[in-house]
Amino acid sequence: MHPDRSPEPAAPSTGRLSRRHLLLGGAAAGVGAAALVGADSLLNTRSTPPLGETPGAAAHGGQTVPFHGTHQAGVETPPQAHGKFVAVDLAEDVDAEKIRRLLTLLSDDAAKLTQGKAALADSEPELAFVPARLTVTFGFGPGLVDRVPGVPAPAWLKPLPEFSVDRLRPEWNSGDLLMQICADDPLTVSHAARMLIKDTRAFGTVRWTQDGFRRAYGAEPDGTTMRNLMGQVDGTVNARPDTDAFETMVWEPRDNPEWLHGGTGMVVRRIAMDLDEWDRLDRPGREESVGRRLFDGAPLTGGTEHDEPDFDALTPLGFPRIAEYAHIRRARSDNPDEQVFRRAYNYDVPTLGDEGQDAGLIFVSYQSDVDLQFVPIQRRLDELDLLNEWISPIGSAVFAVPPGCAEGGFIGETLFPA
Amino acid sequence: MHPDRSPEPAAPSTGRLSRRHLLLGGAAAGVGAAALVGADSLLNTRSTPPLGETPGAAAHGGQTVPFHGTHQAGVETPPQAHGKFVAVDLAEDVDAEKIRRLLTLLSDDAAKLTQGKAALADSEPELAFVPARLTVTFGFGPGLVDRVPGVPAPAWLKPLPEFSVDRLRPEWNSGDLLMQICADDPLTVSHAARMLIKDTRAFGTVRWTQDGFRRAYGAEPDGTTMRNLMGQVDGTVNARPDTDAFETMVWEPRDNPEWLHGGTGMVVRRIAMDLDEWDRLDRPGREESVGRRLFDGAPLTGGTEHDEPDFDALTPLGFPRIAEYAHIRRARSDNPDEQVFRRAYNYDVPTLGDEGQDAGLIFVSYQSDVDLQFVPIQRRLDELDLLNEWISPIGSAVFAVPPGCAEGGFIGETLFPA
Repeated sequence: MHPDRSPEPAAPSTGRLSRRHLLLGGAAAGVGAAALVGADSLLNTRSTPPLGETPGAAAHGGQTVPFHGTHQAGVETPPQAHGKFVAVDLAEDVDAEKIRRLLTLLSDDAAKLTQGKAALADSEPELAFVPARLTVTFGFGPGLVDRVPGVPAPAWLKPLPEFSVDRLRPEWNSGDLLMQICADDPLTVSHAARMLIKDTRAFGTVRWTQDGFRRAYGAEPDGTTMRNLMGQVDGTVNARPDTDAFETMVWEPRDNPEWLHGGTGMVVRRIAMDLDEWDRLDRPGREESVGRRLFDGAPLTGGTEHDEPDFDALTPLGFPRIAEYAHIRRARSDNPDEQVFRRAYNYDVPTLGDEGQDAGLIFVSYQSDVDLQFVPIQRRLDELDLLNEWISPIGSAVFAVPPGCAEGGFIGETLFPA
Repeated sequence: MHPDRSPEPAAPSTGRLSRRHLLLGGAAAGVGAAALVGADSLLNTRSTPPLGETPGAAAHGGQTVPFHGTHQAGVETPPQAHGKFVAVDLAEDVDAEKIRRLLTLLSDDAAKLTQGKAALADSEPELAFVPARLTVTFGFGPGLVDRVPGVPAPAWLKPLPEFSVDRLRPEWNSGDLLMQICADDPLTVSHAARMLIKDTRAFGTVRWTQDGFRRAYGAEPDGTTMRNLMGQVDGTVNARPDTDAFETMVWEPRDNPEWLHGGTGMVVRRIAMDLDEWDRLDRPGREESVGRRLFDGAPLTGGTEHDEPDFDALTPLGFPRIAEYAHIRRARSDNPDEQVFRRAYNYDVPTLGDEGQDAGLIFVSYQSDVDLQFVPIQRRLDELDLLNEWISPIGSAVFAVPPGCAEGGFIGETLFPA
């Protein structure tokens, strides 16, 4: 018997029981042992934590991002330092009613944790008191939406078309439910993920988890564009969330079904970088392959990072200054529909022996129509982008990100109209 | 042929060559291709980075910890948010002269990177410009010291005695050379580790890497004791580096050989926490097992976190208030020699399916004599510590941490007296 009063039945771990029994039944059975076997009345001088207060928070750890609203948080939110992406496969017996219960539970967890409050039945409430701009963003794969009768999926909610650069591995693909858990503090992310994953246990299993990072909070001046592990500034051309362009790109409903209005589409791709090969390329070669200077991210046609590249500029010999196969030329489109909002994280997983580095980018983009906006860009890059020599997408997943909810509501409630 | 001028010969990756050749030999062979095949003269308008400047650094990312000094940095340094521990096994043919070369190389890397400067032959110099209090601390295992003729090892430089609580796995044990890489920014740690590991490649292989984290820089008020993933404040009783107690505990030479004077001993233990079982225990049970309140870390005999526990206090029923098996009672000694300085990190590795969490503590302690100071404490905890029910050491290693060096010197130079 486990000495607990937890609502879940304890799975006995027999190997350890004898030792614990010895302790509890033997000479050491003082007040502690009494507490362990349930005699709480002896312990009424013990502190109980004022749940909901945030005594440990100060400085930036106390900052919160509202959970409730028209849109889910974690899209417009300036990217936090740490991001954990957890994809869950639903168990076979999980039907619409169970999905509703799961989403209610997870929304409640997220609503509390993001505000620096312990989740219901939080096993380590003190770890919840430093929200550090925690956001939890939920995305639905086709496998979730299909289980809710009468609910149409957006046409783009399916695996991306195959690209020739892809080296996809099943263990990094797809997923029924995605949780994007971001905060400026790694312990906050770890704790939130633990609470959320626990609450999915009765409904499914973890398919994949991707841990990512950017610069620490406050390490660089606000507005500095992130660098990826190839050393490039990454995400210079990215609409600012307070612009019309962003609104159209991310929140415009287009042909999406009504339950998704106020929501958007999400692409998550794990892009492995062959850093050992990349290191063999000299700096001019690197700058050429991207079309930007490494040092400050300015286009090779000059100016500063945020200046428009001059794609017509020629060298004295008459060649394009920004080569035909340069990443920034291939990624660019004159079609205003072909734009996505990027919110990427770096990853770097320890390797052993003389293995090369297992590192790269968790590419995350938000766009309201994946087929219309993301796919054409990726097709152009797939056709001709010198960067493809050093990067390989090894995971790929598409999710529908439902709208936000008001207090008392839950994320995904629009799947279940009254 | 790889289009590079790197000093190392390129190992051809044939699968990708055809594609690159096609690009470089075909229609796209503009100025970029010229650059890639070596015609740099066309590119003299290209920026080169002013190595050594730190243009990207501001706020706390610009903070540096001196590398040179009497002692190595990273021991007294207030723990940074992120820590990576890399253990290297030396190749069979690595003799004293090669060790000297390796240590010279690594010390030079560390001296530059910790000051926000690119390492020699840094492949991504821009990633070096945010030092964020980076420290690199080197430790030597017996396998390194033994290879330097005529150099005695301290008696304690060997695997720890077996403890009954141990569940050691060879993949987390031992190592010839340890690099403790800590900074407040995860990208800084990733980049520094990449540069350092690259420079070990010709001398050995990575045996294990452990990634750890604490609270983010500035997330909590200065001086807040870290919490571990069990939710406990962890490290309340830890000497402050500016005290005599610390000096004696960590830097006192005791019986150490002369080459180690100014250095110390380091224990690294990977301690897995069975958080799923821990969650089944109620709060009084948890507080009892440690002897402290979870909420604020105060001893169960009252007061605040840093108050002395009253080990003689009894409950009204005559039992000890802090139980015989409570962690803080077992860890305490009246023998002033039995003290260590702790500098631990949390770890949390993603798991899949319905696996429980793979999380715990990278326990790191510094003490000048491991046998005298660490072993007796661990023996007492091994005998009787209720926490043992939920924690299992799965990795263990002991290193000698040589003294610091002056500018122009290198870490480990005392192994090679003139």
